[in-house]
Amino acid sequence: MNAPSGRTQVRRAAHNASYDSALLHAILDAAYVCHVAFADEHGAHCIPTACWRIGEHLYIHGSNGSRMLKRLMEQDACVTVTHVDGLVMARSAFNHSMNYRSAMVYGRFELVPDAEKHPALEAFMEHLAPGRQQEVRPGNDKEYAATTVLRISLDEAACKARTGGPKDDEEDMSIPVWAGVLPMAQQRLEAVPEPGFTGPVPAYVSGWAGS
Amino acid sequence: MNAPSGRTQVRRAAHNASYDSALLHAILDAAYVCHVAFADEHGAHCIPTACWRIGEHLYIHGSNGSRMLKRLMEQDACVTVTHVDGLVMARSAFNHSMNYRSAMVYGRFELVPDAEKHPALEAFMEHLAPGRQQEVRPGNDKEYAATTVLRISLDEAACKARTGGPKDDEEDMSIPVWAGVLPMAQQRLEAVPEPGFTGPVPAYVSGWAGS
Repeated sequence: MNAPSGRTQVRRAAHNASYDSALLHAILDAAYVCHVAFADEHGAHCIPTACWRIGEHLYIHGSNGSRMLKRLMEQDACVTVTHVDGLVMARSAFNHSMNYRSAMVYGRFELVPDAEKHPALEAFMEHLAPGRQQEVRPGNDKEYAATTVLRISLDEAACKARTGGPKDDEEDMSIPVWAGVLPMAQQRLEAVPEPGFTGPVPAYVSGWAGS
Repeated sequence: MNAPSGRTQVRRAAHNASYDSALLHAILDAAYVCHVAFADEHGAHCIPTACWRIGEHLYIHGSNGSRMLKRLMEQDACVTVTHVDGLVMARSAFNHSMNYRSAMVYGRFELVPDAEKHPALEAFMEHLAPGRQQEVRPGNDKEYAATTVLRISLDEAACKARTGGPKDDEEDMSIPVWAGVLPMAQQRLEAVPEPGFTGPVPAYVSGWAGS
């Protein structure tokens, strides 16, 4: 599959590049946070913010007053999600590497219109805690009105991913040093309820740790 | 402590902001990867890359041919490190939040001169795997010559961090829904050695998982 545009054409370690939609979705869906790059009169900014995917768009949200959200509707941005999966220990210092999955999306964010704001924010909750939307107090008119939701198309996107062990030079293979991968992953720790709660524990809480 | 500059002055959720050097160091030292934002004629870019701290600088490295590294010496950048620590479940949809630690560094990257390149890259290895530099084949002249190391001063930096449970509105406190935090952390998984290795296992490998 080819890169969808010049700026999504991966040049460094191009053998790790992919323009596959299933991989892109998987990388984005595994993320709670993306990093958004944009520029203004003070230069470039790199802002972490919560994100979620619906179909072929990535969504973010924030307060109406956010300077970033205003700016993002006026100019193109680059949104990146990165998962670090391990440290790759080679026999030579130079050939050390990391295993990772990353996705970059280029384009212009657009305002999600009021009619789609409710379902978009409900999908966000579903991403965080499936079924919870029906349990909490939903947003009221004032809260919805104070919230801006933006989305960016996934049309112009690229992924990079590395897996597996070190790629050593042939002449280094006999060096008697430990070589391999030190893997890492996002771990879900035991849920911490607010003091005094005695009600039923929902599935997204009881199944959180160890999943 | 005050923000070191206008562009590091946190405006959103300013009660979560900090300009404390110890917190900044801790957030950076817990990271393997940062996101670097910069702009060129194609717009803004957000590139994940390995990073490590020495004193009051954050370091990155790459191939001499890297367009990003060239560009970063010509204009200011913004470097961000983010750790997501948990999902904060409030009684109302609107008050949901995340626990996190993030650091943003603004400024111009500078080239690390040849005389400091060796110790800088050795410090990188020490960050990844303490003691390993003495075990592997060190870089040769050609490998060092092919590698560019850049650093950015931590003078212009800001941190944001949120911890603890939800902050609910008073009138929502009696809603009988589970509320609290779903914590997460970076987990180190069992090391995966290359096939056939029978030598001694160094401490940074045997102590990796569960640490």
